[in-house]
Amino acid sequence: MRSLISIFDLSVPEIDGLIKTAEDIIENPDKYAEKCKRKKLATLFYEPSTRTRLSFEAAMLELGGSVLGFSEANSSSAAKGESVADTAKVISCYADIIAMRHPKEGAPQVAAENADIPVINAGDGGHNHPTQTLTDLLTIHREKGRLGGFTIGFCGDLRYGRTVHSLIEALSRYENINVILISPTELRLPSNLKKKYLTEGSYRETKSLEEALPELDILYMTRIQQERFSDFDEYLKLKDSYCLNTEKLNAAKKELTIMHPLPRVNEISVGVDKDPRACYFKQALNGKYIRMALILKLLEEAENDREYHPAADFIIDNLLTCDNSKCITSIEQEIQHKFRLTDAENGVYRCVYCERQSKKN
Amino acid sequence: MRSLISIFDLSVPEIDGLIKTAEDIIENPDKYAEKCKRKKLATLFYEPSTRTRLSFEAAMLELGGSVLGFSEANSSSAAKGESVADTAKVISCYADIIAMRHPKEGAPQVAAENADIPVINAGDGGHNHPTQTLTDLLTIHREKGRLGGFTIGFCGDLRYGRTVHSLIEALSRYENINVILISPTELRLPSNLKKKYLTEGSYRETKSLEEALPELDILYMTRIQQERFSDFDEYLKLKDSYCLNTEKLNAAKKELTIMHPLPRVNEISVGVDKDPRACYFKQALNGKYIRMALILKLLEEAENDREYHPAADFIIDNLLTCDNSKCITSIEQEIQHKFRLTDAENGVYRCVYCERQSKKN
Amino acid sequence: MRSLISIFDLSVPEIDGLIKTAEDIIENPDKYAEKCKRKKLATLFYEPSTRTRLSFEAAMLELGGSVLGFSEANSSSAAKGESVADTAKVISCYADIIAMRHPKEGAPQVAAENADIPVINAGDGGHNHPTQTLTDLLTIHREKGRLGGFTIGFCGDLRYGRTVHSLIEALSRYENINVILISPTELRLPSNLKKKYLTEGSYRETKSLEEALPELDILYMTRIQQERFSDFDEYLKLKDSYCLNTEKLNAAKKELTIMHPLPRVNEISVGVDKDPRACYFKQALNGKYIRMALILKLLEEAENDREYHPAADFIIDNLLTCDNSKCITSIEQEIQHKFRLTDAENGVYRCVYCERQSKKN
Repeated sequence: MRSLISIFDLSVPEIDGLIKTAEDIIENPDKYAEKCKRKKLATLFYEPSTRTRLSFEAAMLELGGSVLGFSEANSSSAAKGESVADTAKVISCYADIIAMRHPKEGAPQVAAENADIPVINAGDGGHNHPTQTLTDLLTIHREKGRLGGFTIGFCGDLRYGRTVHSLIEALSRYENINVILISPTELRLPSNLKKKYLTEGSYRETKSLEEALPELDILYMTRIQQERFSDFDEYLKLKDSYCLNTEKLNAAKKELTIMHPLPRVNEISVGVDKDPRACYFKQALNGKYIRMALILKLLEEAENDREYHPAADFIIDNLLTCDNSKCITSIEQEIQHKFRLTDAENGVYRCVYCERQSKKN
Repeated sequence: MRSLISIFDLSVPEIDGLIKTAEDIIENPDKYAEKCKRKKLATLFYEPSTRTRLSFEAAMLELGGSVLGFSEANSSSAAKGESVADTAKVISCYADIIAMRHPKEGAPQVAAENADIPVINAGDGGHNHPTQTLTDLLTIHREKGRLGGFTIGFCGDLRYGRTVHSLIEALSRYENINVILISPTELRLPSNLKKKYLTEGSYRETKSLEEALPELDILYMTRIQQERFSDFDEYLKLKDSYCLNTEKLNAAKKELTIMHPLPRVNEISVGVDKDPRACYFKQALNGKYIRMALILKLLEEAENDREYHPAADFIIDNLLTCDNSKCITSIEQEIQHKFRLTDAENGVYRCVYCERQSKKN
Repeated sequence: MRSLISIFDLSVPEIDGLIKTAEDIIENPDKYAEKCKRKKLATLFYEPSTRTRLSFEAAMLELGGSVLGFSEANSSSAAKGESVADTAKVISCYADIIAMRHPKEGAPQVAAENADIPVINAGDGGHNHPTQTLTDLLTIHREKGRLGGFTIGFCGDLRYGRTVHSLIEALSRYENINVILISPTELRLPSNLKKKYLTEGSYRETKSLEEALPELDILYMTRIQQERFSDFDEYLKLKDSYCLNTEKLNAAKKELTIMHPLPRVNEISVGVDKDPRACYFKQALNGKYIRMALILKLLEEAENDREYHPAADFIIDNLLTCDNSKCITSIEQEIQHKFRLTDAENGVYRCVYCERQSKKN
């Protein structure tokens, strides 16, 4: 049985398939209105995230299914210290598919290893959030008609922004994409990501949104949090230059697509909402449709194959442990630390759950 | 598209229509069991209110629809600082109609201005709670067969009691209603409400429930909170005289209708519950039926008209600001303060959201 | 109308009937998929219990019904001080059946006395939890094919373990059951329970799980909480001996049935999960099916009989009061203390709500 933990669990043809299904749902909603009749989605949200949760719930309801679950950990057994593994096994008795949000990295992976039903990662700490990335890809596809052949700017906090990292990773599998990275020096995209997912000549970095704006076909905005700055004066100096308003937009292309994962605070002025180029509320709508497509796909696959097929490429080695305090291995009972050899040349092993590089004991 | 923010958003014929629909639902529930199939109600409760929330949810379920939402703000995006306007736009992607409860006055109005779907105010601070008023009107209509031609007593905290104010306002549009206001001096109905909604000779004030009781066709009880009294001895002296018990009821009419918005604490003795004149649990039931009628009406109207038609009678004037700390304008991002000229003679402007009188800057 | 407050509200033939229905549901789920169409279950959980709540919700959804409610008290009217009695009356307007969890003993009994719909006790403090007991009975029946003729060991905290007490009580009504009580001295089964439900010669006590294990057909594990020990060294010494692992299991019968009410912490090693004798996750599944059978039975009975028939065998005597601070009578407004004469010889009266022995005033 398949779960969706990381966007890389899906091949490019599979993503194309999901986008196609989503667009068919948009065209023919009636065709799908009973597809999940008598099926149940469990929304296991160990930390609150209204938008994501309601998007999943709306998706399941529009497929004719129903929903149960919890919206924060203190109304759950987690408060009594139950392991994620056990919860996943029990919920398998009550539902047909799980959407899990958890503050610890890798928790949905643990759930997937133990559940008898598919698990969708709805965000695990700062780690993965694949349905957001699918949402972004559907939005780009609907707005541009293709997933390639454009210049996309990422603006704001590129250092810590999970949605930006995931989208850059996902887009690296498509052709003819120019990337402009717009951020203050302190919040630049980490260089290992640049090395891994961007090719020399296909991207450039700038501190100025205004400078980059005229070139862009797509602008992906994110929020800059004050806490990220060591120097408060620097923050004050910079913050306005990373806010999009109607004035700055005058210099942009007519067909620009403005995206934002939401919620926003003030990085996009409310005045921009009425501009036809503003697509961030359309994104929220697309999020529902791509989740419908995903639920359908995973439930169909699960019908045909009830077995769990774990990736076999990891090792368990008592000399290795994960020391990431944000990793689920730091709190889960009796969990085996598993690692993948991700760089044979340099002998780099990464935790299967959080992808943090291990240290030899 | 229409929302219900204040009871005055509905004309008298419209209220009569809702009551008629509600009474038809009571007679013919099967006729309505699938009316909202595939429709979704979002219950956005920024503060808990079990009775109101479950009443809305039961209403939607009995219409064949389904429900999603949250029951308190800390499991919502509000914790991340999202504006009510943005939440309303996003929820419009996931649901067909919104019921919103919010601690700030005017928040549902902000939602209605931004949503693409109808918004029902399920209580905004101490401001409006129109579905409670509709519930009260349906109860009176079912018990008395008409909305007029009776003597109604309001007992308890008439100064701060929102439900009392709203019902008095609503009843002011009907004929032949005698009002007796029963309260301690400190908790009398505010004089501006008396001036506006009651006519000389059609009402009187008294401190004594026992004195008023024999005259009443309807008694609307509310709770007196100790905190309202500056003088604790005064509170102790008075509190029992505003509690209804079986003994006091001996002096009342046989056809008296006893109402209470619930929850009660001890202002009506449990012994009264078995008296056939006790109608407060029937009120709870009526609340479900009138909400069914309301959801049906607003969804039908929305089908036919997807546009939002804001009232055009307000002004935006940079010299005016709303300084009510309980108003949604005090926390909402980038919101324009809007005012209505409510008293041209004296130049009184009131905030569109909370109706507080503005001050010139 | 009937509610389920204690397992003793059901006769042995009724329990057999529920088990039969549950097993028929397992065989023929389609037959039951619409049985509760248009019916609503209210889950009133005044304290969180995810497993139990989701089990009830899944049960109702699989019967084609729908669900509303709350999952902890602070999103409920309880925060405003509403009595359980009033909540039960109001919820009767919104739902067809109630599942209630409450920290105070007897609260579901108060609800049952006031609701117009059946109430299922989903756990009231440390007092009753009859659907857990039904779950255990169904599990034994499915694994052994009968409810008698076996040796069952109860291991762990037998002094405070509510589920153990209830199951021992329930099994006392069946034939040919041998009981082995496995616990440290400090956590032995209370002697009044032994006297009441176990017969001399049909049970024995031991401190050693390893000693008892080879004899057992069923092993019912529970958790030992450190707080229960007055002596921390004693706890450290004992805790491992009450943990089940694969090594200890080598000495057990091939057909052993291992049960646990869940959640577990570490009293059963994760390694045991893969052993075919491990039945604790099957228990979770059985919990859903027996709840489906129960909901069906109570709704059917309610159809035919809307009246509440309180047991008439209690007395109200102003000389008696319940002084159990965990009893619902300690907080509920205007509640009458009721008692049952449970031991005429010694003049013992017990509270109808919490079963605590009363004291004469």
